[in-house]
Amino acid sequence: MDVGFIGLGGMGRPMAANLIKAGHAVRVWNRSPEPVAAAVEDGAVAAASVAEVWQADVVVSMLADDASVRAVLLDEALLSRAAATVHVNMATVSVGLATAAAALHAAHGIGYVSAPVLGRTEVAAAGNLNILASGPAELLDRVSPLLAAMGRRTWPLGDGPEQAVVAKISANFMIASAIEALGEASALAEAHGVDPGALVDVLTNSIFPGPVYSAYGTMIRNDRYAPAGFRLPLGLKDVTLGLTAGFDARVPMPFAGILRDHFLDAIAHGDADLDWGAVAKVSRRRAALPRD
Amino acid sequence: MDVGFIGLGGMGRPMAANLIKAGHAVRVWNRSPEPVAAAVEDGAVAAASVAEVWQADVVVSMLADDASVRAVLLDEALLSRAAATVHVNMATVSVGLATAAAALHAAHGIGYVSAPVLGRTEVAAAGNLNILASGPAELLDRVSPLLAAMGRRTWPLGDGPEQAVVAKISANFMIASAIEALGEASALAEAHGVDPGALVDVLTNSIFPGPVYSAYGTMIRNDRYAPAGFRLPLGLKDVTLGLTAGFDARVPMPFAGILRDHFLDAIAHGDADLDWGAVAKVSRRRAALPRD
Amino acid sequence: MDVGFIGLGGMGRPMAANLIKAGHAVRVWNRSPEPVAAAVEDGAVAAASVAEVWQADVVVSMLADDASVRAVLLDEALLSRAAATVHVNMATVSVGLATAAAALHAAHGIGYVSAPVLGRTEVAAAGNLNILASGPAELLDRVSPLLAAMGRRTWPLGDGPEQAVVAKISANFMIASAIEALGEASALAEAHGVDPGALVDVLTNSIFPGPVYSAYGTMIRNDRYAPAGFRLPLGLKDVTLGLTAGFDARVPMPFAGILRDHFLDAIAHGDADLDWGAVAKVSRRRAALPRD
Amino acid sequence: MDVGFIGLGGMGRPMAANLIKAGHAVRVWNRSPEPVAAAVEDGAVAAASVAEVWQADVVVSMLADDASVRAVLLDEALLSRAAATVHVNMATVSVGLATAAAALHAAHGIGYVSAPVLGRTEVAAAGNLNILASGPAELLDRVSPLLAAMGRRTWPLGDGPEQAVVAKISANFMIASAIEALGEASALAEAHGVDPGALVDVLTNSIFPGPVYSAYGTMIRNDRYAPAGFRLPLGLKDVTLGLTAGFDARVPMPFAGILRDHFLDAIAHGDADLDWGAVAKVSRRRAALPRD
Repeated sequence: MDVGFIGLGGMGRPMAANLIKAGHAVRVWNRSPEPVAAAVEDGAVAAASVAEVWQADVVVSMLADDASVRAVLLDEALLSRAAATVHVNMATVSVGLATAAAALHAAHGIGYVSAPVLGRTEVAAAGNLNILASGPAELLDRVSPLLAAMGRRTWPLGDGPEQAVVAKISANFMIASAIEALGEASALAEAHGVDPGALVDVLTNSIFPGPVYSAYGTMIRNDRYAPAGFRLPLGLKDVTLGLTAGFDARVPMPFAGILRDHFLDAIAHGDADLDWGAVAKVSRRRAALPRD
Repeated sequence: MDVGFIGLGGMGRPMAANLIKAGHAVRVWNRSPEPVAAAVEDGAVAAASVAEVWQADVVVSMLADDASVRAVLLDEALLSRAAATVHVNMATVSVGLATAAAALHAAHGIGYVSAPVLGRTEVAAAGNLNILASGPAELLDRVSPLLAAMGRRTWPLGDGPEQAVVAKISANFMIASAIEALGEASALAEAHGVDPGALVDVLTNSIFPGPVYSAYGTMIRNDRYAPAGFRLPLGLKDVTLGLTAGFDARVPMPFAGILRDHFLDAIAHGDADLDWGAVAKVSRRRAALPRD
Repeated sequence: MDVGFIGLGGMGRPMAANLIKAGHAVRVWNRSPEPVAAAVEDGAVAAASVAEVWQADVVVSMLADDASVRAVLLDEALLSRAAATVHVNMATVSVGLATAAAALHAAHGIGYVSAPVLGRTEVAAAGNLNILASGPAELLDRVSPLLAAMGRRTWPLGDGPEQAVVAKISANFMIASAIEALGEASALAEAHGVDPGALVDVLTNSIFPGPVYSAYGTMIRNDRYAPAGFRLPLGLKDVTLGLTAGFDARVPMPFAGILRDHFLDAIAHGDADLDWGAVAKVSRRRAALPRD
Repeated sequence: MDVGFIGLGGMGRPMAANLIKAGHAVRVWNRSPEPVAAAVEDGAVAAASVAEVWQADVVVSMLADDASVRAVLLDEALLSRAAATVHVNMATVSVGLATAAAALHAAHGIGYVSAPVLGRTEVAAAGNLNILASGPAELLDRVSPLLAAMGRRTWPLGDGPEQAVVAKISANFMIASAIEALGEASALAEAHGVDPGALVDVLTNSIFPGPVYSAYGTMIRNDRYAPAGFRLPLGLKDVTLGLTAGFDARVPMPFAGILRDHFLDAIAHGDADLDWGAVAKVSRRRAALPRD
């Protein structure tokens, strides 16, 4: 397929590479030039402008957040001259943005698919992402070879632009909740003379297997949250997406409220450059641990 | 070894059976007679009284809660005439009870080991429990063959009576937090047109594998919380043990505070006989779901 | 003084009338025409357009929220042709809007004063508002006769556009917290057989005198929240302003988080047209009161 | 009336003195002897033992908490030999204790009245307490002259032992909530450049008059919480009474949950000897204020 790819960050670059490996023709654009050169080495064609990317049949984008999507893509002039017939937005954005973007695309005769992913950069590189997808069934069908090239599995979640986005926001809320629960439990354990590392070992080897508890459990055991895989302010951004989605649909989310406060507490205390696992430090600080 | 076993409930019976299978001589006592008859069929000897059980070398007990332990075991007259030199308390009790029990046992020259378990009845039957153990190293060593007969692994957590208890309370707090997070996420998803079952599928097949998310995810997908594996009021009891342990050690636990309120909300609405997974119903009710 | 007045709602109309009574020349504008006619009867001059209002020396505005202020006032074309040298914005708006508005006004050489008020319509009519004011000292001085005509007292809170706004948001957060505390206490009392009305009587006649506890206590005693003095969604809007202000300055606000969820719960249950005092119904519903 | 009075602490002593002033014969007992000597100077008779106090017609007690009441008064031997026909318990105790105490008294043919008070020592000295009373109407009637001698007004709240206790617990919960709301609002204000003292001035002179906001507002303005009028751990005790009462009646109390955590946070950080107003320090610390 003739694919345009926008956004060659830590996630976007390996995803574009996997499209190329699967035999698709990929023209790429990125705000900064370095990743473009790297993608060209992988076999991509460098587009001279965003507009040129939109001359491909399908546009795939992987930008950071609402602001980037708005700045780069939600541009009437751009969309009105596009040849592309479908845009697959793989960023984690707000429900509001997804809905507005789909409407704007529709006004220009362009199909819109939401397809955010679960997995970090190394998972993206291995082509093992779990892809949450929603949009018109016919479009999901059309782009399925592309999604298959980037992920181990595509999960269809509905025919609107919002369902995949809400599922992704829910997943991140659940990761944040797992970190917070681990943080509170570890502080409780430590205050009673249990080594938090021993607690993490028990839990991850019994009832809580899987990547989330082991990754954040390791950070907590080692009390080491740098270098950051996912920075605290991004975590707060995602918790806020959850709160906003809850607000829009009138769904109380008390855990999300607690998370918001603990992320703010962490950032106020200078931990903005740490991994969001560092929200566990808040529980320790509030309990005045360690105690001598 | 010559073992006395007290408490033949859903968990205790298969645990005693596994001790017998491993070749230990087991005399048993239970408040109600039926499980005793069953244990005798498994090869146990029925003790005529609790006091007789305490003539064994090692006493293992698996009672329901603080009140049962207090009523059956924390009895000066009983302990003063005991021949046993060590008591392995496998119940989930409060930190305060564990500490008081250890002191009372010490006053009568009896060693005390805390050894609560992770796993439900079918796990106990398979001898696959994860056993959280704390107490004097020499005692843990002595009773290790018994623990090995009942579990897949014993996790040593410290030399006091409280560490294993705190670890168990922490684990249950984390399960409750996972249920609540699933509940809030499912309500959010449903309110935005995502099928909660589809969300559960994605999560349990990707970042949240393991028995906790799949068991409670299934309940939520089916909106079916009976028959109860673990009743709501027992869940509230365990959350309260966490809050009390946090209080004792001055550890704020905001997630536990939210859990407490949601369990109370569930019980106030008549769901006391449901599985504690039904705390997820509270998030749906608060959002007035389903909406027509 | 030559005053332009924009926004003749329930609050704006009596405020404009008080300016007229104090001898100021007031030209008025309002989106809908009826209140203009009424103001003209009070002695105002009807402006043909918003632009005409900006030909006065001082513009006072009392609009509903950020959206109205943005739509009516933050207009480059309008400000660039204005003769007015100072704008007194008396609406309850977000910190972000106040800051942005002040910067935009400065770019057009117009002074900006934030002056939100405490008090409802009858207080405005009596000229007894408490006015929270911030902005450059020289400007506060210049507009002080106008503020004196509308309120019993002006409270200077700083020299920026944000301090008065934050104080107003804080005050509304505290009112919402008082309602919620009353609601939880009343549910607790009722569940234990205490008449909530009797509890309200004790409190408002002893340690909690003043308009807030008596107004909302009366609603709770009578379980009657209509007609609404201040609708639930407006209350939620103000709680959200507090959360956003806390977010911007990295201040955890756990009470505000709880308030947000209880307002959402109330609105999800169909109470959007009730007074925000009706958030007390949420505590009763969660406790499944009344019980038969 | 012939009155026995037990508990001559900061509250009890002036209350006993007011009974004497009103012409009643008062025999007193206290754990430590100094206050007894002082009461004798006021005109009381020193009882040689608690038992002797129970030979009076009516016993009034003002002890610190559940533990003191249990230790001094809930004694079968004592009650079985008592001549007194009614006991007025003015302490702030748990609902459980009030109910159990009433039942024990009834078993010995002694009437029981709950009569906790609102007001601190100086209010007690002036005879201006607000007295929350519940118990059988006939008994409330009989002891009304005594209550009238100690307070400005008696508020009848029901015919059981629990209603007055729940009302008192509710009142203290509401004071704690007001402190917390002030604390969060002050932190928000300070973080945005508003002087907390200026905020306190506005609020206490407008919508929040009365002793609670002015007393705690002054502490916050001055950032000075010593000497303590009511120590933090006592505040936590009362919040816990509220949570327990909510638990017993299945009433979610999210504000109380937040309060609990903030009191624990304060005590963990070494502020146990400060006034409970110091819970406001927690909001500032969590926001990392002051910032340089």
